[in-house]
Amino acid sequence: MELHPVPDLPEIEPGDDLAAMIAERAAIEPGDVVTVASTVVSKAQGRTADLADFPAGPRAVELAERFEALTGEEKDPRLAQAVLEESTEIIVETPFMLTETCFGHTCVNAGIDRSNVPGHDLLLLPKRPADRAAEIRAGLLERADRLDAEAADRIETTGSDGDVPDAIDEVGVVVTDTCGRPFRHGQRGVALGWTGMPASRDWRGETDRDGRELGVTVQAIVDELASAANLVTGEGDDGTPAVVVRDFDFGDHAGGDSLFRSVEKDQVRQALREWSYE
Amino acid sequence: MELHPVPDLPEIEPGDDLAAMIAERAAIEPGDVVTVASTVVSKAQGRTADLADFPAGPRAVELAERFEALTGEEKDPRLAQAVLEESTEIIVETPFMLTETCFGHTCVNAGIDRSNVPGHDLLLLPKRPADRAAEIRAGLLERADRLDAEAADRIETTGSDGDVPDAIDEVGVVVTDTCGRPFRHGQRGVALGWTGMPASRDWRGETDRDGRELGVTVQAIVDELASAANLVTGEGDDGTPAVVVRDFDFGDHAGGDSLFRSVEKDQVRQALREWSYE
Repeated sequence: MELHPVPDLPEIEPGDDLAAMIAERAAIEPGDVVTVASTVVSKAQGRTADLADFPAGPRAVELAERFEALTGEEKDPRLAQAVLEESTEIIVETPFMLTETCFGHTCVNAGIDRSNVPGHDLLLLPKRPADRAAEIRAGLLERADRLDAEAADRIETTGSDGDVPDAIDEVGVVVTDTCGRPFRHGQRGVALGWTGMPASRDWRGETDRDGRELGVTVQAIVDELASAANLVTGEGDDGTPAVVVRDFDFGDHAGGDSLFRSVEKDQVRQALREWSYE
Repeated sequence: MELHPVPDLPEIEPGDDLAAMIAERAAIEPGDVVTVASTVVSKAQGRTADLADFPAGPRAVELAERFEALTGEEKDPRLAQAVLEESTEIIVETPFMLTETCFGHTCVNAGIDRSNVPGHDLLLLPKRPADRAAEIRAGLLERADRLDAEAADRIETTGSDGDVPDAIDEVGVVVTDTCGRPFRHGQRGVALGWTGMPASRDWRGETDRDGRELGVTVQAIVDELASAANLVTGEGDDGTPAVVVRDFDFGDHAGGDSLFRSVEKDQVRQALREWSYE
C-alpha cells in the first residue's frame, strides 16, 4: 500500500472545485482512495466564520462563566455559542464541551478550528461531509483519465440511506479530520464522511487458522485510512491536505457503512451524559 | 509512504525469535518502522492460556452473575477471573469489563483474545510490550544488513523512564493491537509499545500560514502507524502480522513519548468510574 500526498495545492477559497484541483495534480487510478482534509472541504464550502457572527445567548454566557469558575481560564462566550449552534447534543458541558455534530461525529467544540483560517477567526466543520465526498468523487470520475466515468452513476451517496459498495467502487473518497480521544493522549486522523467504499470491513463469521471465529469483527477502515493519510499530510505551512492511497486491498469481505455509534448503544456517552465535573 | 507486509511468517511458537524471522523475510532499511501485531508477540512470549488456568474467585463469580442478570447472556466466570488478573483497574464492570492493563492501555476484557490461539482458549496481551519492542529492535539492528548495529546502544527502552529520540533512530518498532473505542463503531489499530521513535509528533508552538498557533498540537503517530499497518495485515488464515513502513517522514518537530492518559487527567475515565449501568 502506498500513500502519495497531492502536491502543490494552493490555499483553498470558497467555491473552489477540489476534484478538479486534485485531478490536475495527481494521476488517480482505479482502486485508489483519495483522502481530503476537512479544513479544505470547509474552506471550499465557505465555512469560515468570525466570533462576531455568534453573539452569545444566555446558555453560552452561562457555560463560559461556569468554565471560568471551574478552571480559572477565560472562555469566549461567542465560541461557546458557535459550538452550541454547530451541535445537536452537548454531551459534556464542562470542563470541555463534548458535542455531537449533526452528521453524528462526537468531538470537542463541534470540531471548530481556530487555526488555518486566513482572515477569519473560525473554521467550522463541513456541512454534510458524506455529500461533499460524493461531489469530489463524481468530479474525479469525470476528470481523471484512467477512471471509468460511468461509476458515478452506481453510487449517489453513502450513509445510512445510501448504497454500500462491496469494496472500492472505482475510487473512494474520505473527508478526514483529526481529533482527540478518551484514554489516549494525542490526536489521530478520523473519517467524517466517505463515499464509493464501505466504512468498515466486516470479518464476522470468518475464522482463524484454528477454525475459531475471529476476535476482530468490524474494522473501521475509513478511520484507519484517515490516520494513515494524516501521517503524510502535515499541518500548517507545508500542509498537503489531500492524499492518494494506492493498492489498499479491501479483500473478499463484507462491507459496513455505519461508523458513528447510535446514542442508545453508546454506553460511554450515556455515562458522560450523567456525569458532572466539579 | 509505503507499507509492505512481511511475507510468509509461520505460526509463531513460544520462544521464537521474531526479529530473526522478520529480518530473514524483509530487507529493513534505515528510517523504517516495523509494526508487529501483539498476537505474535504474545505467542512468542508464551502468553497462551486456558480458562482452566483461572479458577474463578468470588469477585469473578459475582461479576459473571451480574452480567447474566443484566444482559440475559452467559459469561464464563473464569474469563472474568482472567480479566481481573490481567488488569490494574476495572473502570467499568458491566455490561462490559473496561480495564486498564498494567502497561497503561485501556481496553475491554484486558485485551484477552479468544481467537487465533491454536490449542488454547485464550491469548493474553504481551507483558511489557515496550520492552518486547526494544528486544525486536535490537534483534533487527543486529541482523539487518543495511542497519547500523550501533544504534542498539543509543536507546535501551522507551516509556516514561526511557529516552525519547527526536525522530526514528535507525529503525522504529511498534507492537500493535486492534481495539474498539467510544463514539465510533468498529475497531482500529493502536500501539501498545514502541521503541526507537517518539510516540507522538508535537506541533505545539508551530504556526499556520497565517501565523496562528496550530489547532492540532500532539499527533499520536504510533497509533496512526498501527492503524495504517492494520489495513494491510489482515486477520485469520491469511494474516500477515508484521509490516514494514517505509518513507514515513517524521519531519522537524519535537517528539513526545506519552500515549496513555494518566488517571488524574482522564476525565472520561473518571466519569466512567462513577457510572453504573442498570
